[in-house]
Amino acid sequence: MSNRYRLLIETEDKKGLIHQITGVILKHNLNIEQNNEFVEKSCNRFFMRTDLSGEPSRSLFDDLSRLLSSDQVVRLIPKRKKRVVVMATKEHHCLGDLLLRNKYQELDIDILAVISNHDYLRSLTESFAIPYHFVDCACLDRGEHENKTLRIVDSYDCEYIVLAKYMRILTPDFVGRYGDKIINIHHSFLPAFIGANPYKQAYDRGVKIIGATAHFVNDNLDEGPIIAQSVLNVNHTHSAEDMARSGKDVEKQTLARALRLVCDDRVFICKNKTIIFE
Amino acid sequence: MSNRYRLLIETEDKKGLIHQITGVILKHNLNIEQNNEFVEKSCNRFFMRTDLSGEPSRSLFDDLSRLLSSDQVVRLIPKRKKRVVVMATKEHHCLGDLLLRNKYQELDIDILAVISNHDYLRSLTESFAIPYHFVDCACLDRGEHENKTLRIVDSYDCEYIVLAKYMRILTPDFVGRYGDKIINIHHSFLPAFIGANPYKQAYDRGVKIIGATAHFVNDNLDEGPIIAQSVLNVNHTHSAEDMARSGKDVEKQTLARALRLVCDDRVFICKNKTIIFE
Amino acid sequence: MSNRYRLLIETEDKKGLIHQITGVILKHNLNIEQNNEFVEKSCNRFFMRTDLSGEPSRSLFDDLSRLLSSDQVVRLIPKRKKRVVVMATKEHHCLGDLLLRNKYQELDIDILAVISNHDYLRSLTESFAIPYHFVDCACLDRGEHENKTLRIVDSYDCEYIVLAKYMRILTPDFVGRYGDKIINIHHSFLPAFIGANPYKQAYDRGVKIIGATAHFVNDNLDEGPIIAQSVLNVNHTHSAEDMARSGKDVEKQTLARALRLVCDDRVFICKNKTIIFE
Amino acid sequence: MSNRYRLLIETEDKKGLIHQITGVILKHNLNIEQNNEFVEKSCNRFFMRTDLSGEPSRSLFDDLSRLLSSDQVVRLIPKRKKRVVVMATKEHHCLGDLLLRNKYQELDIDILAVISNHDYLRSLTESFAIPYHFVDCACLDRGEHENKTLRIVDSYDCEYIVLAKYMRILTPDFVGRYGDKIINIHHSFLPAFIGANPYKQAYDRGVKIIGATAHFVNDNLDEGPIIAQSVLNVNHTHSAEDMARSGKDVEKQTLARALRLVCDDRVFICKNKTIIFE
Repeated sequence: MSNRYRLLIETEDKKGLIHQITGVILKHNLNIEQNNEFVEKSCNRFFMRTDLSGEPSRSLFDDLSRLLSSDQVVRLIPKRKKRVVVMATKEHHCLGDLLLRNKYQELDIDILAVISNHDYLRSLTESFAIPYHFVDCACLDRGEHENKTLRIVDSYDCEYIVLAKYMRILTPDFVGRYGDKIINIHHSFLPAFIGANPYKQAYDRGVKIIGATAHFVNDNLDEGPIIAQSVLNVNHTHSAEDMARSGKDVEKQTLARALRLVCDDRVFICKNKTIIFE
Repeated sequence: MSNRYRLLIETEDKKGLIHQITGVILKHNLNIEQNNEFVEKSCNRFFMRTDLSGEPSRSLFDDLSRLLSSDQVVRLIPKRKKRVVVMATKEHHCLGDLLLRNKYQELDIDILAVISNHDYLRSLTESFAIPYHFVDCACLDRGEHENKTLRIVDSYDCEYIVLAKYMRILTPDFVGRYGDKIINIHHSFLPAFIGANPYKQAYDRGVKIIGATAHFVNDNLDEGPIIAQSVLNVNHTHSAEDMARSGKDVEKQTLARALRLVCDDRVFICKNKTIIFE
Repeated sequence: MSNRYRLLIETEDKKGLIHQITGVILKHNLNIEQNNEFVEKSCNRFFMRTDLSGEPSRSLFDDLSRLLSSDQVVRLIPKRKKRVVVMATKEHHCLGDLLLRNKYQELDIDILAVISNHDYLRSLTESFAIPYHFVDCACLDRGEHENKTLRIVDSYDCEYIVLAKYMRILTPDFVGRYGDKIINIHHSFLPAFIGANPYKQAYDRGVKIIGATAHFVNDNLDEGPIIAQSVLNVNHTHSAEDMARSGKDVEKQTLARALRLVCDDRVFICKNKTIIFE
Repeated sequence: MSNRYRLLIETEDKKGLIHQITGVILKHNLNIEQNNEFVEKSCNRFFMRTDLSGEPSRSLFDDLSRLLSSDQVVRLIPKRKKRVVVMATKEHHCLGDLLLRNKYQELDIDILAVISNHDYLRSLTESFAIPYHFVDCACLDRGEHENKTLRIVDSYDCEYIVLAKYMRILTPDFVGRYGDKIINIHHSFLPAFIGANPYKQAYDRGVKIIGATAHFVNDNLDEGPIIAQSVLNVNHTHSAEDMARSGKDVEKQTLARALRLVCDDRVFICKNKTIIFE
């Protein structure tokens, strides 16, 4: 059977673009297995995700580049697992879920390592035969701690960093280095309850729905492009602790769903939003 | 068949309360058809809703009062429709839904009148044979307009005022006069997107979930006790207008659900939250 | 501003199809505003829905036909409301909701008439200035009643027939005449609880979820292609009557959602399933 | 702090029951922390779940028994974890989720052992330090295999057996021995798609919603009392395999939710239905 590739294109929209791109694909004798495209009119950008079968040659890029605008992004990627580093603090539920899914290949990810500012989750991580790095905050100032963490991340050459309830705020330096590659799970349906202790905030407000949000991290806390959100009904019999407990299930599902979309190359970022071909 | 009543009690919690209250009910030869109780521990308040059959005598209150704390609330109400005035502006979807449900007695409400600051919804309202009052804002300052509106509301001796997308902010005077009796539908899952244009805010933020919130009105805009919330999935193909359009369905359902709960005496207010026996 | 059209294509899949179709569109100087396509591999069928701006000439069809398989379906339709006849029996909730949406143009439909086997819903229908036809079952056998009904339907030259809780089963004759044009709302999440009294069936089974299904009608009762389904949580405190009452809200939403999809030309039928470009 | 107990009562309903039961509780100097009661009118049964603080004496039972009908069930249980044996076949997702929750005490369960008709899940189970029993079907007839399995189950003196995707049908003998104590997760929203391969059935029917059902096992396959159900939206782009994959998430959540309810003594069985105090 022939190889399978995925073509991802992001460019300025113009008339005839689909015809031209599909013409290049045909010329290179590739077959379109599945195709999605979308034009974001507010900024006149065209997004396309195409599953191809066949064997692409290097000149495919040259042919495509000729068609597209100067600020185009074209990627042709073989279908394979994404290399991921997970960062966590003390809570096990998101990490445990990811480790299980990784072991049984439920997501297209390959977890290379877990990094934590605590030593709590070592036995869980190591029981799945994944390296665990504990970077102690004690005796280190904020910058030193992050640098030490960053050097470990760097050493893994990963494609995505997943913050599976990592309870420290990353500096713009860190975020800048891994721009659009850091995925966080926040325990509220953003933008409600930004910041600390969202379940306590939700309890105090008396909401009837709580939720979780998976999003890319940028320099504004809890304000990066949203990938996935889910919610859960609550009522007056639930304490803030009850909400936190049931919220964990929503958090881990939402993070897994976001990772599935991202690692299947279904998520494009357009300014502060995502375009998702589901 | 004997008559049916509902007993609503709100009092300070203490040991033996259920035993004592049910003792009074037995002594008066009333039968408990259904019973719910809840203790809000944060403020040591006891809430109880009981459906009774039989014929209660006036001394029931005296007997109950002897048991309860000085700040008790005891209400014994025959099961019947609640008298409701609806206020609306230009949008028809919530009003139309309520008028239909009122006509076919789907909710335990009796809509006495519709009041609006526009004349748009007159034909809809009058086609259901409900009086329509148009209070024009032109030539009236804010206070005069509200006073004129209030005089009409007052004339109906209603139990609840429903703001079915009434797009003006009520003054503390108005709210104070009908404390805990005004129900509003807000077009976001509060506390996200407080204030004007929530669908535009939701679009700009790129959320994947939008919603609606039915709540009691108090003096803080969009901050009264929440009765019901519902949500709806959206994606990158939805404009702010699309969200507003699909949001309408969630708004009308959520408002109807809240009204069903309130008019079935299932909703107690405890500080800034609701206790709801569903 | 130029006119807007929608191109709908259904044909055998083959390599290069998108390139060829978009080539014809370009040649005719039409602009693609939005585009969806899907290949159903199980039967090698290609489906495409394209919003175009510009002024198509008659030869567009000839040019497209040359590309496509012999069993192709190509439709180019101006964007306008669909002509709809609604059939109902005694329940008002779906009909009332559709009449409201029709009045305020919330759906791309134009309700031409309501036909019923009872006279109950006349005042509701006529208050919206829509013709109401009562076809009495009394004194007519099954075939005569349907023929009489059919003659009225025929007289309206409609594009879709909506069964808004029409509680009679249509004969294969009727269904055959309006194949793929009849939309029904069934009060269960099919295929659970096929047939009569689904809420009673649901209550007896003790399910925790009830639902509704909008589907195209074919000759097998409740087995036509499904367009939309929604569900609702229930519990042990709900009687079959409670379920029926809350189910009404789900029924009317689900029917409206299905109609929105169908009348926006988003729904293709492929054997016993639907392909829906949402 | 005083000890905490839970009182569970199931008896024939009669007038004054709550008053009498709470009288006994008061007399024994116990405090009601939380209380739920329900009367199933179809069979005139009364159900009550009460959280007590204080130290109950043995004569509490005698005092309660005097009040209640002859077919009463009264249980007073200290609040502690339930002893659980899990049975599985080859699929890891439900078992893995339960093992994680057990390790971190997210549910009030104590998993004593895992029993399987395959050896696949041994490493997963043993990495959580839980005994794993492989009962090979080869060389054993159906009865022998079940007997061997049953002897292992018996040896653990468990309160509940959880079938976490155990793909063999239990005989009436097995079910009779552990009546009302066996919880199964079925991969459809029952009663849709009873029997084998529900995702394939769902795909073939073209449904837009799939789901999972946790239920007690009785002698009729997939027909025991339902504890919890959840659903998930699907569309035409999902193959049966896609549905099975996303269905796994719903299955594990639904099973965990059901176990949380059961092990928190919130679930009563009344004929073929459950009464659940949520």
